[in-house]
Amino acid sequence: MHFSSDNASGVAPEIMEALARANDGPAWAYGRDEITRRLNGLFSDLFEHEVTAFPVSTGTAANALILAALTPPWGAVFCERNAHINVDENGAPEFYSGGAKLVPVDGEHGRIGRQALEMAIDAMPGGDVHHVVPHVLSLTQATEAGTVYGVDDVTALSGLAHETGLKVHMDGARFANAVAHLGCSPADITWKAGIDALSFGATKNGAMAAEAAIFFDPALAAGFEERRMRGGHLLSKMRFLSAQLEAYVADDLWLRLARHANRMATLLADAVTETPGADLLHPVDGDEVFVRFGDVTVIRRLADSGVAFVPWAPREGIIRLVASFQTTEDEVRQFRAALQQAASVAG
Amino acid sequence: MHFSSDNASGVAPEIMEALARANDGPAWAYGRDEITRRLNGLFSDLFEHEVTAFPVSTGTAANALILAALTPPWGAVFCERNAHINVDENGAPEFYSGGAKLVPVDGEHGRIGRQALEMAIDAMPGGDVHHVVPHVLSLTQATEAGTVYGVDDVTALSGLAHETGLKVHMDGARFANAVAHLGCSPADITWKAGIDALSFGATKNGAMAAEAAIFFDPALAAGFEERRMRGGHLLSKMRFLSAQLEAYVADDLWLRLARHANRMATLLADAVTETPGADLLHPVDGDEVFVRFGDVTVIRRLADSGVAFVPWAPREGIIRLVASFQTTEDEVRQFRAALQQAASVAG
Amino acid sequence: MHFSSDNASGVAPEIMEALARANDGPAWAYGRDEITRRLNGLFSDLFEHEVTAFPVSTGTAANALILAALTPPWGAVFCERNAHINVDENGAPEFYSGGAKLVPVDGEHGRIGRQALEMAIDAMPGGDVHHVVPHVLSLTQATEAGTVYGVDDVTALSGLAHETGLKVHMDGARFANAVAHLGCSPADITWKAGIDALSFGATKNGAMAAEAAIFFDPALAAGFEERRMRGGHLLSKMRFLSAQLEAYVADDLWLRLARHANRMATLLADAVTETPGADLLHPVDGDEVFVRFGDVTVIRRLADSGVAFVPWAPREGIIRLVASFQTTEDEVRQFRAALQQAASVAG
Amino acid sequence: MHFSSDNASGVAPEIMEALARANDGPAWAYGRDEITRRLNGLFSDLFEHEVTAFPVSTGTAANALILAALTPPWGAVFCERNAHINVDENGAPEFYSGGAKLVPVDGEHGRIGRQALEMAIDAMPGGDVHHVVPHVLSLTQATEAGTVYGVDDVTALSGLAHETGLKVHMDGARFANAVAHLGCSPADITWKAGIDALSFGATKNGAMAAEAAIFFDPALAAGFEERRMRGGHLLSKMRFLSAQLEAYVADDLWLRLARHANRMATLLADAVTETPGADLLHPVDGDEVFVRFGDVTVIRRLADSGVAFVPWAPREGIIRLVASFQTTEDEVRQFRAALQQAASVAG
Repeated sequence: MHFSSDNASGVAPEIMEALARANDGPAWAYGRDEITRRLNGLFSDLFEHEVTAFPVSTGTAANALILAALTPPWGAVFCERNAHINVDENGAPEFYSGGAKLVPVDGEHGRIGRQALEMAIDAMPGGDVHHVVPHVLSLTQATEAGTVYGVDDVTALSGLAHETGLKVHMDGARFANAVAHLGCSPADITWKAGIDALSFGATKNGAMAAEAAIFFDPALAAGFEERRMRGGHLLSKMRFLSAQLEAYVADDLWLRLARHANRMATLLADAVTETPGADLLHPVDGDEVFVRFGDVTVIRRLADSGVAFVPWAPREGIIRLVASFQTTEDEVRQFRAALQQAASVAG
Repeated sequence: MHFSSDNASGVAPEIMEALARANDGPAWAYGRDEITRRLNGLFSDLFEHEVTAFPVSTGTAANALILAALTPPWGAVFCERNAHINVDENGAPEFYSGGAKLVPVDGEHGRIGRQALEMAIDAMPGGDVHHVVPHVLSLTQATEAGTVYGVDDVTALSGLAHETGLKVHMDGARFANAVAHLGCSPADITWKAGIDALSFGATKNGAMAAEAAIFFDPALAAGFEERRMRGGHLLSKMRFLSAQLEAYVADDLWLRLARHANRMATLLADAVTETPGADLLHPVDGDEVFVRFGDVTVIRRLADSGVAFVPWAPREGIIRLVASFQTTEDEVRQFRAALQQAASVAG
Repeated sequence: MHFSSDNASGVAPEIMEALARANDGPAWAYGRDEITRRLNGLFSDLFEHEVTAFPVSTGTAANALILAALTPPWGAVFCERNAHINVDENGAPEFYSGGAKLVPVDGEHGRIGRQALEMAIDAMPGGDVHHVVPHVLSLTQATEAGTVYGVDDVTALSGLAHETGLKVHMDGARFANAVAHLGCSPADITWKAGIDALSFGATKNGAMAAEAAIFFDPALAAGFEERRMRGGHLLSKMRFLSAQLEAYVADDLWLRLARHANRMATLLADAVTETPGADLLHPVDGDEVFVRFGDVTVIRRLADSGVAFVPWAPREGIIRLVASFQTTEDEVRQFRAALQQAASVAG
Repeated sequence: MHFSSDNASGVAPEIMEALARANDGPAWAYGRDEITRRLNGLFSDLFEHEVTAFPVSTGTAANALILAALTPPWGAVFCERNAHINVDENGAPEFYSGGAKLVPVDGEHGRIGRQALEMAIDAMPGGDVHHVVPHVLSLTQATEAGTVYGVDDVTALSGLAHETGLKVHMDGARFANAVAHLGCSPADITWKAGIDALSFGATKNGAMAAEAAIFFDPALAAGFEERRMRGGHLLSKMRFLSAQLEAYVADDLWLRLARHANRMATLLADAVTETPGADLLHPVDGDEVFVRFGDVTVIRRLADSGVAFVPWAPREGIIRLVASFQTTEDEVRQFRAALQQAASVAG
């Protein structure tokens, strides 16, 4: 019963096999190998658009390197208040961009609303060298609250951003979960909806350590390779990173894994809603389930019964559960029993 | 016949097996897993000294993060003119340190001499805020010329550095090759010889993407974790990075692999010295072999015959060959034949 | 009738004379001159405490250099939402600190409240390398709203900050106006109230281009000189900067000038409150007067009548007027007439 | 007898008067004043070319800000080994550029030779993301050795640089001395000779604290204003900085002052050459005189006799004397006497 994070999961068998296959004889280093050279074509096919794709090992690297490509040091990046780039990367975007400013925008269930974005942009005084200038809107898909932006939501926010001259980044650490939820094509929710660059996550959903920074307009990627090198993110045996990505998107593996994780999250959510004194804090669109207990002592009992989770805001009775491609229905059944037991005791 | 780099090699079977073993059920993310928690003990045993070890994916990350811990932005880092940190990392040390200055020192066969270091330190005017202040000496072991510093060499240079208040870093991207060559203990050539921090390389010698930043004085590591996070180098599924390192040092695998690579380099060198018109540019201590041809047209013929190598300074007739843990005697035999054939033709 | 900013004023005669006196023969450059060497003693006397004082040319430099001394790149700096460091320096603190994060706290009339600060600190999750760590509280005195923190206010906020291990910076671009308003000693409102470092402003109040970065604990100033040099803020003919500061604090000139400016602001405020349809947005403690007009068309008429001011939030009918040491009663009288004329016309 | 530096001089009377004139009533802050608005026209006239000119307070700021505009963080800047940007700014160019690399080139009497530059450029391996890419050539005029590049020299070096796609910066901290020596027009030795941007110094030659960053192609100045703001170098009372520059170039004041300083340096040099055991280390083109004594004990005796100078390399018997616009013939006569006295004693 390990629901602390989808990062707690291991590596999908298909990806382990791809790593084994890639380990066949010598190959040119630093991305001049055959597998890496196929990536641009691979992702261009997947997104039905010519893209430039750069493999990196972590989501933080993908996000920070993309943002550094999209904003000068004196730019502002709008993001939801709890966005990973704003609160969970210890200032990586500031480091890579040379000190750009993240501007938090309030969201509802993790989603930035059109009006909130409009107000945030309006509040940035422009036309004067004293002030940072808005350069980027960054949307997290799926959001930090486990919800998903609809195609219309993204289109509207991107449209607003583009009107003001901003570029739009999507932090897709859980992009697979979002696409699986929406049932749309990867193109629909990215460049067709106005996204300029995407952090395409694979690690949380079955890879070992692999993400792709994808630019839908190759011109925007100027300097990306140099920054990646200076950041120490150009792997010498790059083929093993690229092989993960290749296996991840082959035969829709990424979507199959994400659909399973999403379904397990739905089952976890069902267990919650069935339990008196437990409520869902947000709609469950992806693989994350936020639970609020009326009685905060339930949290301890649940932990004591062997369930691993993150005590998100324990004084307010809030915990987070995350399913993954490896979560089993049996695990969820055990969780339901543990939850009901923990909730049934008087606090 | 692939001798372009040891980075062109794949992953050692023992390390692939360790990855498979690590892929067993969920584990806490970001280094709180069991394997990662064993690393400090593992490396403390290996070095017979209490150390703090931080796994990262690349040698550039290890180098740049260590240097950023050892120097403020206004510090100077002395290194051999052709050191990787100076010429092959596109400014990663400058990026991570906030703009510290690398000061190249001339070496002989890749090794900084005591007198050259003394002159370089003397030439840095101190005591005035106009000038950067010497903070670090960085030694590459094995060197970029394929040679190895002896224990006495390192002790003398470190001693000189410490007298002036410098810290001493060792870039050990090919540390295994150096230790295998010297036949000393890892302790002998590091902290016992005055090294404060080591980039302990594994990738070039059988790992997939794994290096350890090792501090022999844990107090020097202040800020390392924060910088690693901001650099995007904290892997979520860290166990797979740590598992590589664990397998790498288990049962002396690292030394066995390095000894093989070194022996293959010796055989390559023998093939060179047997060939009229071909000379070794440097002594062959590790896995690198630098060759100078009197007739530069040999280079093209050698390449045409299917040998992969780096045309190091082709106008001067210089190429570089690198053996690896995967190089076979058979490959070397084929190389000898190809070389003799290429050299026998009139230019 | 120029009320656009106190920066629009010129240089006080006493300071011009000091510049002329300083221009007497050669002097050692870069701060080794006699005048600069007197500064630490001068400011130690003024603050009744041993201080280290560094002259710089701009308030932005003083703020950013002090903050860089008080926080590592992975630190958080709490400040009022509209603080100069947050919205008017185009990211200078981020630049100098290497990417630290400014965290805006809501204030009332420009003053951070104790509860708001408490909540902001509580909201920063600590103990995890994913998050920036609170390092500094920065208070603006006088505030951006033209109000002044009382001694008790500063003491309470500093106390709260120190409990959590923060250092406390005071942005005193209008420090003279605040001290003149409070009638306390400079010591009372700084180190005695828990301030660790102060940007002591002089430019807005009669100097040409002179501020002092003052550390009440010299140990906190480590690295300041190096950063100032790297920032290009070490003047070669430093004596002319130091001479401004010396003349500024001699014979209480700074307080005399500030008292005058504050009194002129009071007269401006009186003119506003006498005018139907015009209200003060904030209490007028220093030299700034924020006015809200019920009828936004008054703004244009006021501008057309020759009054220079900043249309702060013109769509909401808000303008800012600033008095200075050079403002005359006659100018205020003219302003009152112009205001009443502008306000009397139907919109 | 103060020859420690031209920075030890004071402010020219014409510039003090300009400051007094500028101190007349209020003026818009941050460069929107009338004087600052005239600067682009003023310098365009002076250089017979449309330029964009940005006033700043220090030469280090001018240099570092210009270099940051001309190179990305992954660029290389070639400069003479002893260039101010390389050894006297404590890493300011690295700080402002985000970590670009200064590459020292050997010079003769302070001047980079064509062949040395060619070799330096050739030695930078390009076309690979592992290496920094040459972006800028920076020439110091007059040089750090007190010599001056001829128009042909600059043209040849700039031509070579442009062929390789480099931009060319001129550090003109002593530009006036160079132009005075050459007798050419400012245009001849700058844009007509291939210079893209110039640090136009005034401080060493009679200003209080004033330099201009001048771009001969305004497009190259993109981002300069933002960087200047973030560096804390946008003065609020900018008129007082601009007034210095205006007075400095009015009626050829800058050239008259420089001619005087150069002539005084010539007289100092004459005194040296007349003295047995004293030699000039470099030709004296500008205001600097480097002296080598056969007997190093002369240095102490000269200092004891009241002559202020910099003991440049005292163990080698080398000192530096600098004349300024304020140096008098009488001072030089006293110096000659002191020198002859110091040199006549047996060591």
